[in-house]
Amino acid sequence: MTKVMNVAMIGGGFMGKAHAMAYASMPMFFWPAPAIPHRKVVVDVTDGMAEEARERYGFEEASSDWRAVVHRPDIDVVDICTPNNVHAEIAIAAAKAGKHIICEKPLARTVEEARAMHEAVKAAGVIHMVAFNYRRTPAVALAKKYIDEGRIGRILNFRGTYLQDWSADPDSPLSWRFQKKIAGSGTVGDIATHVVDLAHYLVGPIAEVNAITTTYNKTRPLQQGGVDKLGAAEKAADAERGEVDVDDEVVSMLKFEGGAIGSLEATRNAYGRNNFITLEIHGTKGSIHFNYERRDELQVMFADDPADARGFRTVYTGPAHPYGNGLWPIPGLGIGYSETKIVECYDFFSAIAKNRQPSPNFEDGLLTELVADALIRSGETGLWEKVG
Amino acid sequence: MTKVMNVAMIGGGFMGKAHAMAYASMPMFFWPAPAIPHRKVVVDVTDGMAEEARERYGFEEASSDWRAVVHRPDIDVVDICTPNNVHAEIAIAAAKAGKHIICEKPLARTVEEARAMHEAVKAAGVIHMVAFNYRRTPAVALAKKYIDEGRIGRILNFRGTYLQDWSADPDSPLSWRFQKKIAGSGTVGDIATHVVDLAHYLVGPIAEVNAITTTYNKTRPLQQGGVDKLGAAEKAADAERGEVDVDDEVVSMLKFEGGAIGSLEATRNAYGRNNFITLEIHGTKGSIHFNYERRDELQVMFADDPADARGFRTVYTGPAHPYGNGLWPIPGLGIGYSETKIVECYDFFSAIAKNRQPSPNFEDGLLTELVADALIRSGETGLWEKVG
Amino acid sequence: MTKVMNVAMIGGGFMGKAHAMAYASMPMFFWPAPAIPHRKVVVDVTDGMAEEARERYGFEEASSDWRAVVHRPDIDVVDICTPNNVHAEIAIAAAKAGKHIICEKPLARTVEEARAMHEAVKAAGVIHMVAFNYRRTPAVALAKKYIDEGRIGRILNFRGTYLQDWSADPDSPLSWRFQKKIAGSGTVGDIATHVVDLAHYLVGPIAEVNAITTTYNKTRPLQQGGVDKLGAAEKAADAERGEVDVDDEVVSMLKFEGGAIGSLEATRNAYGRNNFITLEIHGTKGSIHFNYERRDELQVMFADDPADARGFRTVYTGPAHPYGNGLWPIPGLGIGYSETKIVECYDFFSAIAKNRQPSPNFEDGLLTELVADALIRSGETGLWEKVG
Amino acid sequence: MTKVMNVAMIGGGFMGKAHAMAYASMPMFFWPAPAIPHRKVVVDVTDGMAEEARERYGFEEASSDWRAVVHRPDIDVVDICTPNNVHAEIAIAAAKAGKHIICEKPLARTVEEARAMHEAVKAAGVIHMVAFNYRRTPAVALAKKYIDEGRIGRILNFRGTYLQDWSADPDSPLSWRFQKKIAGSGTVGDIATHVVDLAHYLVGPIAEVNAITTTYNKTRPLQQGGVDKLGAAEKAADAERGEVDVDDEVVSMLKFEGGAIGSLEATRNAYGRNNFITLEIHGTKGSIHFNYERRDELQVMFADDPADARGFRTVYTGPAHPYGNGLWPIPGLGIGYSETKIVECYDFFSAIAKNRQPSPNFEDGLLTELVADALIRSGETGLWEKVG
Repeated sequence: MTKVMNVAMIGGGFMGKAHAMAYASMPMFFWPAPAIPHRKVVVDVTDGMAEEARERYGFEEASSDWRAVVHRPDIDVVDICTPNNVHAEIAIAAAKAGKHIICEKPLARTVEEARAMHEAVKAAGVIHMVAFNYRRTPAVALAKKYIDEGRIGRILNFRGTYLQDWSADPDSPLSWRFQKKIAGSGTVGDIATHVVDLAHYLVGPIAEVNAITTTYNKTRPLQQGGVDKLGAAEKAADAERGEVDVDDEVVSMLKFEGGAIGSLEATRNAYGRNNFITLEIHGTKGSIHFNYERRDELQVMFADDPADARGFRTVYTGPAHPYGNGLWPIPGLGIGYSETKIVECYDFFSAIAKNRQPSPNFEDGLLTELVADALIRSGETGLWEKVG
Repeated sequence: MTKVMNVAMIGGGFMGKAHAMAYASMPMFFWPAPAIPHRKVVVDVTDGMAEEARERYGFEEASSDWRAVVHRPDIDVVDICTPNNVHAEIAIAAAKAGKHIICEKPLARTVEEARAMHEAVKAAGVIHMVAFNYRRTPAVALAKKYIDEGRIGRILNFRGTYLQDWSADPDSPLSWRFQKKIAGSGTVGDIATHVVDLAHYLVGPIAEVNAITTTYNKTRPLQQGGVDKLGAAEKAADAERGEVDVDDEVVSMLKFEGGAIGSLEATRNAYGRNNFITLEIHGTKGSIHFNYERRDELQVMFADDPADARGFRTVYTGPAHPYGNGLWPIPGLGIGYSETKIVECYDFFSAIAKNRQPSPNFEDGLLTELVADALIRSGETGLWEKVG
Repeated sequence: MTKVMNVAMIGGGFMGKAHAMAYASMPMFFWPAPAIPHRKVVVDVTDGMAEEARERYGFEEASSDWRAVVHRPDIDVVDICTPNNVHAEIAIAAAKAGKHIICEKPLARTVEEARAMHEAVKAAGVIHMVAFNYRRTPAVALAKKYIDEGRIGRILNFRGTYLQDWSADPDSPLSWRFQKKIAGSGTVGDIATHVVDLAHYLVGPIAEVNAITTTYNKTRPLQQGGVDKLGAAEKAADAERGEVDVDDEVVSMLKFEGGAIGSLEATRNAYGRNNFITLEIHGTKGSIHFNYERRDELQVMFADDPADARGFRTVYTGPAHPYGNGLWPIPGLGIGYSETKIVECYDFFSAIAKNRQPSPNFEDGLLTELVADALIRSGETGLWEKVG
Repeated sequence: MTKVMNVAMIGGGFMGKAHAMAYASMPMFFWPAPAIPHRKVVVDVTDGMAEEARERYGFEEASSDWRAVVHRPDIDVVDICTPNNVHAEIAIAAAKAGKHIICEKPLARTVEEARAMHEAVKAAGVIHMVAFNYRRTPAVALAKKYIDEGRIGRILNFRGTYLQDWSADPDSPLSWRFQKKIAGSGTVGDIATHVVDLAHYLVGPIAEVNAITTTYNKTRPLQQGGVDKLGAAEKAADAERGEVDVDDEVVSMLKFEGGAIGSLEATRNAYGRNNFITLEIHGTKGSIHFNYERRDELQVMFADDPADARGFRTVYTGPAHPYGNGLWPIPGLGIGYSETKIVECYDFFSAIAKNRQPSPNFEDGLLTELVADALIRSGETGLWEKVG
């Protein structure tokens, strides 16, 4: 019988939903499974919210007291799906309690928080992971495979974007994502860190950055209700407005430790772009292009193809590609957000089963925070800023 | 508290996996949920297979005796995920036992079977559904919305394709899908019926067809093991070979009752096409294009757009579109195969909750069988054949 | 010095423009050139139109008497750019006068005309060509190369479409293209023949067809002025209307002599499609896809690519591809309509220089007429009709 | 009768071909034409080359003495299609001789040269133009129209790339484009200036830049023969090699005078990218995307579209768009490199006819040089550099 592990999930919003689905589904996809995650306790802000999350997400128990929960001896894994401002406190408590931890991204609001979290998990000897799920897209993992096998040669250039438009309307609500005290930063932490994580994964450590950061919309309507509201669903032009104290957009040049150069752009104000994570990588033997909005596909070009048949191949991921055995029996059936989270869950429990840190773990998360910090510093100084 | 309904799922292959995931996930996505499906019993061919399916898919019990299971008084829903040859027998037994039924597509091997199944569920007064999940892709449901609202006018023309390549290699195994006694037909039943279902959904009943059917590969290596094997993973050029007695490809012209004309093409031998379900619909006020391989998107063109800004719009489905409230908070996060099955599950339990037949139900499934039958007849006669 | 050949061009409309550009440009692109075409005389309906055409298109002389012109001893080449109704008369006269002839497509209104034209050029021993220019798109010629070299194996299936929308508006004018006495047929002759020509070029002779033909718009406003008016620029809902006596759309299944099957669809009523000539060809070793709206590109998939890097390649045509030495120095600079006509011109004068019939010549044009005739017959009978 | 103007074209390479085609074709497309350009004299390095160019490009006379030619009283227009190192000398002489001048891009090797050229044409009172032809793509002109009409609102962000791969192979020849004394700079002058010109055209003046410049391949094989060799056709791994003293790639951030921010990337080493000029522009009311490799199309998104039908529209340019009356009668027939050059020619002679400077003229070309200079300075200093 496969080992059952008890999960305590803190936070019942959009991310809670995605994680709960993954706990239920992972063994269905990856079998034999590294473990069967049991949805033991879900924690939310109030007892009522927690009880609703329990029923909805199929947990056994509900609680509004995360401190009590993370100390329960029957809990194996703590899953942090809260806004950024409590990541550190929960993670450090969970580590001290000896729990394995998966924490939503970005790891923390600041480098200091991230460093403290990393030290706590190191001291505790637990398994830890940051939920940068886009790495888990099979097409991204395939890009990694090509690169590791040398099939596009030495990397010269990396270009990454993360463009969304859910906050382009200046009357979309002032969610916690626009408040520095909760989010730590704006696009830098929220979405640019995804690109940084992908750059680290595929190319290696970023050494220096040189960035512009900007805030187009200085105020937004105060949000009604406590739940994270993405998009303009609740826009209210005549509502009372609060100050946006984080960045709306970041554009940066990059220098990698390995010699490659590149660029990064992240914004939530690009009308018509939804979840437009794109990667373009040029090597000495070929190139790679990826667009998450068409995430079943990887574009790859090999320079040594015959002269009359050279060009980007559109590879639809399936059984012949990373994670293919666990997902669907033919390519093109469909990789959705769900599948990225199921793969993430699989990699996390595999790491526990093998007692080997997964990637990205809290150390990787800290490195990403260091880049985020450099981006913000560079946005202020207008100079090249070293990472760390 | 939301009502819990007990599900008995017959069949633990690829479709069993997809359905189990949907049972676990549906309330997480669509909340309040119409019901909480409880994975009560899973049935497979042997006790060992059933027990493995139980653990893997999170069911409470396992069984290798579907007859016993469908008669259990604690079962509310019977889910048929088997090969086509036992759909009728199980469905009729389940109907007689008063169970609501969801049955994988195609409904049956023959019109006769489909008709008997339809009569059984009608007589029993249960809720019934055929699992043509591609209708549940939000972009397809959006196409339906545009059409119903008259936004592309009267439909003149429909073109549908379903192209795959998993059997293009003549040495890929002789799965049950190539055996008439199990599958009923080849591409006609397996994939062309999906296109027929989409045509019925979006345009209305097909009245007449005129088809070519063909079989490129007359033999294939006998398959080792009982599980459904798609693709060439197991190809063995020197294995003993068996006869393929079903069609490899169907091409047809269509006449709709409403006056539109069209065409249909289905093949599993189109190298480079994976799950290439495409729809192109021309109306008197606009056009629609859909490609399932890029299923987050619908292409729509409105003829009354300004002269200098006319063209297909690439609409990424999200909260503003059908099923959007239940899926992800912004477009582009990702619609995968999982999401189509979760929506299907939602519609099925919603139908039960409202005591109103969903669509496509067994009557729709029968209509699709009638078209499939006409396609096969026309492939033999070379003439226009009326449906039914 | 390169030989100079005197051209008499009959017709100064859209096609006259394209041909005149090609005469001037061909030696600039393909050098050494097979000949330098000299724009000697242009013929139009009236002296005034002819004189304007002369100045605009850079011809030496103007005339409104094509009969006199085609008999002039200083004319080497007669170029027929008129509406379809005078193709035969001019071509036969030109052949009798011993001139090489290039004739716009379709070759004629009827099989009888086409046969007479073919016999005339055969008897005269002149070089003859039909201007099916889409063959000359480098990406289409590349598809031909792949096929001839066996790189996609034996062809199983061909699908061709030609979708436009310039007549979708029922109030767009009744140009000669909607009048049987001038055009011979509607979409069949105007655009479906392009697809037939491409099918013949790439796959081989079509043996049988089974078609639907239909006319959505039975009347259209009478056109003001003599010039060919495509599109709705002149639409006038309250103008006097005339009858459309040709087909608006044709959908057909195809059987090729070589065993392949396929389909064809042509319409000028597909909102959002502009010059949407698409080809999809499935072979036993790979597949090809082409879309003229993105004509710089050919999509090709080779089945023997490594399992983890299979997929359609997007090949941008350039110097490594057919006609590449004559066109632009790198791919992606841009293949437009001009370039297809320049290549056509090059192939025509190369044929004259080598005294070898080009393809498609009048015999090919006749074969295409035979298919067009079968399409129209099948549209009436509803049966499979043999070609010829 | 339309006025005939005599052209002297200096340089018979790739650009000479494109310009000659445009002179012959422009009145065919744009009629009534602003003038009929007469191909009077072509100049090349030797008499033999000039004579060949004369015959090939249809000029009346040939010469190897540009100085003599630019002073001939019968010459109206001097067209400079040479490598960059003689642009200034020829242009200044032609200006002094009172000739209208069209000069290939980049205007000059250095700001000093560009400034001298600008002063010369200003003093002479002639019409002057720089041949940044990509502005003339109808889809780019359509973007300009949308922006000028306020349809995408205030521009927040501009991203431009120009990616090619013809020099990615380190053994491709050391053409003059890799030699500072001839070219002035590498990718900066050769292709980044196109992006700068497009940015100036669409967004307005660039105020500051912050760039990385790099040279991947420090040496290349010496080139055989005098002609410009793009690409690897002549690669010779064992040939004697010379030093590359210009940049291989430039990546830059941009700040515009109007407040927008942005980025720019140009490289000739991006395997799989051919002539990949892309523009992405985000405004407060919509967005624009353009990819020259699919140049018939403009992508535009309007934020005020209905919530359920928002998305980028793919607009194929045709008669309803800029330059549409002169080009082809329906969209999708095909915009190639030829068509961009024909439009450029039309705009140049229209400017002469109206005695009004076209855009981009030498002043615009000087501004672009100032940006190029700032890019190179910033590549050296690593700091934000002001333009001019």
